[in-house]
Amino acid sequence: METKTDEIILCNFGGPTKEEEVKPFLFLLFDDPLVIKIPFAPLRTFVAKRISKKRAPESNHEYAKIGYSPINKMTQIQADQLQTLLRKGNPNTDVHVINRYTAPFAQDVIPKLKFDGGRLFIVTMYPHFCHSTTATSVREVDRAIRDRFPSQEIDSTRIYSWWHNQSFLEYSTGEVKKKLDELIETQTEGPITVMFSAHGIPKRYRDKGDPYVTETTGHFHEVKRKILAQLDPQQAERIHWNLCFQSRVGPVEWTKPYTDETIDELAKSRGGHLLIYPVSFTSDHIETLYEMDVTYKEQALEGGFESYHRVMGANDDHRFTECLADILQAHGL
Amino acid sequence: METKTDEIILCNFGGPTKEEEVKPFLFLLFDDPLVIKIPFAPLRTFVAKRISKKRAPESNHEYAKIGYSPINKMTQIQADQLQTLLRKGNPNTDVHVINRYTAPFAQDVIPKLKFDGGRLFIVTMYPHFCHSTTATSVREVDRAIRDRFPSQEIDSTRIYSWWHNQSFLEYSTGEVKKKLDELIETQTEGPITVMFSAHGIPKRYRDKGDPYVTETTGHFHEVKRKILAQLDPQQAERIHWNLCFQSRVGPVEWTKPYTDETIDELAKSRGGHLLIYPVSFTSDHIETLYEMDVTYKEQALEGGFESYHRVMGANDDHRFTECLADILQAHGL
Repeated sequence: METKTDEIILCNFGGPTKEEEVKPFLFLLFDDPLVIKIPFAPLRTFVAKRISKKRAPESNHEYAKIGYSPINKMTQIQADQLQTLLRKGNPNTDVHVINRYTAPFAQDVIPKLKFDGGRLFIVTMYPHFCHSTTATSVREVDRAIRDRFPSQEIDSTRIYSWWHNQSFLEYSTGEVKKKLDELIETQTEGPITVMFSAHGIPKRYRDKGDPYVTETTGHFHEVKRKILAQLDPQQAERIHWNLCFQSRVGPVEWTKPYTDETIDELAKSRGGHLLIYPVSFTSDHIETLYEMDVTYKEQALEGGFESYHRVMGANDDHRFTECLADILQAHGL
Repeated sequence: METKTDEIILCNFGGPTKEEEVKPFLFLLFDDPLVIKIPFAPLRTFVAKRISKKRAPESNHEYAKIGYSPINKMTQIQADQLQTLLRKGNPNTDVHVINRYTAPFAQDVIPKLKFDGGRLFIVTMYPHFCHSTTATSVREVDRAIRDRFPSQEIDSTRIYSWWHNQSFLEYSTGEVKKKLDELIETQTEGPITVMFSAHGIPKRYRDKGDPYVTETTGHFHEVKRKILAQLDPQQAERIHWNLCFQSRVGPVEWTKPYTDETIDELAKSRGGHLLIYPVSFTSDHIETLYEMDVTYKEQALEGGFESYHRVMGANDDHRFTECLADILQAHGL
């Protein structure tokens, strides 16, 4: 019997791993019509060139402080772990990484796939659907597939959103709960703020129907409900819950409440202990390692919080690999 | 302890149940910016008025022949059955129907929901995500929710695509297999064509990244694979598989192959027996009861097929209700 390989593509954002990669990464990001919505391509490219050139030095300064982005390494580790795990069930399983803004790019990876009659699964590393992450990643893969097979529709299963997968929600809840339990035990006095911080998007994207904000909101409430069900009411009284949006750039209004403003307000009005959870990030990146661990931490402690704590990204966690396997299996792998 | 009601919204297209409803239904359909992509609203409304007025008589003629659309009745039956089924697990569960183009409309239903601290699930009756069905339905519900709660994001779980749900795929496969088995048994000679026919969309929507065609393609191949795994190779040799797209309107190119053209071609080149499966329709409607059972049937038999057969929509099938429950439960209900 012929070999049929099940091929799985893990899509992620990508990130610069050294100084030379910062400007090209920023350029591709800002030249993406699903990120900067300028439909006229030459104008968008012109704007992207200017912004990436202007922002590269400061961006590089921040990346240098965190030793550049671990995201590419983490995605590759997850892909390798997932491949090892899935090959226990079916030895003919290949897992590939495709990034949107740094190599490996779709147009380089898709030509190397086997397409030998097995199945193809495309899943992104973003738990919540957003046009600026999920859609742009999957479309780039789609484009490369159509370049390779211009005259046929390829059989595939594309997974656009999985925050609601029950294994992942358990994992996500467990990660927050573990940190919260430590905090309850070590800091016996004062209020505790559990702040879910998601990457923001321009408000008009949400108004036009992008599902991202409703998905992060759903995720926030599910985890909150699950944790509250495990806490005794007296413990629960100390704990306050907030969902905020971070990392806005440019002059337009983004989805609110903003993480930085909320930290400032709560540092004054509530104080106590701040536990921040990067709900939309499965790998640590500049938004967690710099924005959270440097900027927000300083802001929180200088503003009046007694202590600052953070839940880490899933990164190379084996239990997250198991979630990815479960997500794929729920889709028929 | 206070009562918290889990509320579930089943979204569907809606359809006219009598002559007076045909024109308003067509008007709302063509005035939807996700169906007719004219961004300037007054122009779109003008066009929608003209098209709906022009098409209403012929459309009414077809609807009259099928006794008008059963879709509203079927959606309500599914909602009632689902509510009965889910209340066995949690008595505080309400299931509501919201249609996009006929009553009950989102703006009338959402104000009546309890929002008493329970959870909200929004699921459409379309197995495959499409901007012209799924997105427009969910956005209309979203708009009504934001009208009711203008200053907060509501906690909800919105299910955009579920063709890959394993219970549903088993159900879908079983429905095709049952008809195919009958056909294999009763028609022992000649080739059998299993034709999956999905509602088409303008080709440029697919080119721009609408996932609908890749989702129907994935569904087609999954069912085909599952059935082939159950047939002996000799039986399988008689069977040919096609995925086509139907119901195009207007002058632009739609997703191909077109169902009508493919029937004409295969009637001549292949002949034998035609089994058609309305893969994108969970309730029978004008596209199945008229387009398939009248137009395509005539065309197939006059063109050279010996016999014509069709898999019915899920309609009021209790086993489909169980699939809907499973889809919701997989999303945490």
